[in-house]
Amino acid sequence: MAEEKAVRFGILGCASIARKLVRAIGMTPSSSVYAVASRSVDKAKAFASSNNLPPEVKTYGSYEQLLDDPCLDAVYIPLPTSLHLEWALKAVQKKKHILVEKPPALCVEDLDTIIEACNNNGVQFMDGTMWMHHPRTLQMKAFLQNPDLFGDLHKVHSAFTFEGSDKFFEEDIRVKPDLDALGALGDQGWYCIRAILWANDYEMPQSVIAHPVPVLNEGGVITSCGATLSWQDGRVATFDCSFHSCLTMDLSMHGSKGILNLHDFVIPYEENSALFYSSTNTEFWEMATAWGPRPSEHRVTADFTQETLMVEEFARLVKGIRDSGGKPESQWSSICRKTQIVLIAVKTSIQEGLISVTL
Amino acid sequence: MAEEKAVRFGILGCASIARKLVRAIGMTPSSSVYAVASRSVDKAKAFASSNNLPPEVKTYGSYEQLLDDPCLDAVYIPLPTSLHLEWALKAVQKKKHILVEKPPALCVEDLDTIIEACNNNGVQFMDGTMWMHHPRTLQMKAFLQNPDLFGDLHKVHSAFTFEGSDKFFEEDIRVKPDLDALGALGDQGWYCIRAILWANDYEMPQSVIAHPVPVLNEGGVITSCGATLSWQDGRVATFDCSFHSCLTMDLSMHGSKGILNLHDFVIPYEENSALFYSSTNTEFWEMATAWGPRPSEHRVTADFTQETLMVEEFARLVKGIRDSGGKPESQWSSICRKTQIVLIAVKTSIQEGLISVTL
Repeated sequence: MAEEKAVRFGILGCASIARKLVRAIGMTPSSSVYAVASRSVDKAKAFASSNNLPPEVKTYGSYEQLLDDPCLDAVYIPLPTSLHLEWALKAVQKKKHILVEKPPALCVEDLDTIIEACNNNGVQFMDGTMWMHHPRTLQMKAFLQNPDLFGDLHKVHSAFTFEGSDKFFEEDIRVKPDLDALGALGDQGWYCIRAILWANDYEMPQSVIAHPVPVLNEGGVITSCGATLSWQDGRVATFDCSFHSCLTMDLSMHGSKGILNLHDFVIPYEENSALFYSSTNTEFWEMATAWGPRPSEHRVTADFTQETLMVEEFARLVKGIRDSGGKPESQWSSICRKTQIVLIAVKTSIQEGLISVTL
Repeated sequence: MAEEKAVRFGILGCASIARKLVRAIGMTPSSSVYAVASRSVDKAKAFASSNNLPPEVKTYGSYEQLLDDPCLDAVYIPLPTSLHLEWALKAVQKKKHILVEKPPALCVEDLDTIIEACNNNGVQFMDGTMWMHHPRTLQMKAFLQNPDLFGDLHKVHSAFTFEGSDKFFEEDIRVKPDLDALGALGDQGWYCIRAILWANDYEMPQSVIAHPVPVLNEGGVITSCGATLSWQDGRVATFDCSFHSCLTMDLSMHGSKGILNLHDFVIPYEENSALFYSSTNTEFWEMATAWGPRPSEHRVTADFTQETLMVEEFARLVKGIRDSGGKPESQWSSICRKTQIVLIAVKTSIQEGLISVTL
């Protein structure tokens, strides 16, 4: 009975990045991995085996076969971004709810086509921005929303960088113009932009301008860039993303009364707990020889991984539609679309010679 | 004998910001406060008394009188920036070595006039960027210069902000167009720009562009702004300064192999020790469920305050000239000038509608 009620996932593609979410689906009581598809059934079987999936999990040698399975409720799409539009639409037309890896699309128009198809077919859309679902994110938001502890938001700075290996720069889909053409901007910048929007309660910036000097590879894929976002009332945000710098995931927010910062906002250093640091009403001491108070450390324990919590939230929404006749929750497509619009504005600024793009 | 050899300082102006350095001069064995001047002798006497200066310290009712004292070796100039040119030149013409509060001048031309006068008169110049002299700064530099621990520098981000009180916005010289017309850019941005140049081994950026939306008060003084600096090889730096956000002093540097960051780079949280945090070769663990290693905390103990160490270095240079016939050390004027050039480029970008300024 419980098994019947679980949301049955199909995995569309067996890339290694799928492994983490497959694990999360298996760890979420309300969901199960029902089928796995690759372009060959051998690959699908090898993926199922290496990920310790139960023997009853179906393996398909084509994405179409998986989508034709009437028992599937939902599809997780970890394919390269260039394939998202085609396979998201095919999945949605088969009435499958979709959980799509980020970036969900190469352009805003493609994302709108996907979201519109979801709405027309009554299926749930969510992108795979897993850190949104960590309990730390909620606790940080409570701090930001507290007028006595944080006050008015003025600045956000975010950076997500890692140093790609030689193999990464030769083989990874994130440096291939025909696969993940948005490169570091799509892979890392997505999270930074989402964090900036999240901190700004999803109020869109007025203008976006890319920083000099973006780095593009010979295929025209961005491997390092940054940008400044600004709001009419003076709020400013900056971010950096790069495949060339040491791994870090910085996020800091400056308010009139408080400061919040952390260095692992996308993936916490460890799965079962995460930290953030805050200061409130810091001030100089006598003669400005010292100041304080120092930032307070906040530890947030997590009984479930952020990916598990994301799957749980997605499954909850799917069940609401499947079992109770509910409608898709539009929040996730709305913030996804805003993220995509800002991301494409950064890309446009880079392409047009670092112009200021008005939104 | 030891007293005769000490560098005798005159304090030109009794602003409350002078107190910290007067204390430092008193704590430095190689220097002493010899005289204090204000626009009235009563004010000078009150300052001497409230700062527990010894009774033999002379008090003058005009700056000219102080400069005419033949026993003085050096002058500390904590006056508002708009008065620096006049009084620095007068001091230098009297062969006094000068330690000038930052920002040293309102424009590059004024600073050049001061530096040229110092060179022509054989006196030492130094600006009051005290964090440069903290032993932490040396240790951080050693980390940045280590190719195995940090690698190539790619990004610097810095922020220095504090929330001005109502009284600050009404009375402080830093919001007055006739006193410290460079506002937050001169007061806080100076440190951020210096830190960025320091991290880049004083190599000048190719271009500077201010961020939207700078905040100016009714007198046209910048109370909040930011900018992006870029180098031809792709290095990028961003900074924010503001009189409107909670007190923080962030500095982070991203290299190919390592990360360095701290939140109190201008004034350490406490005087007798300071921290910084570094990471090297951080990487994702299996399936990117976690990553590490976490940043290491480095504690640097300081037997002397950074202001004391600054005075000591200045006094060492003065003694070299006074006692050994040495020449002024040009390093300090050189990095001061570079800081001023970048600072003025940010101001120009703001004044010209956020244009990119090529250096």
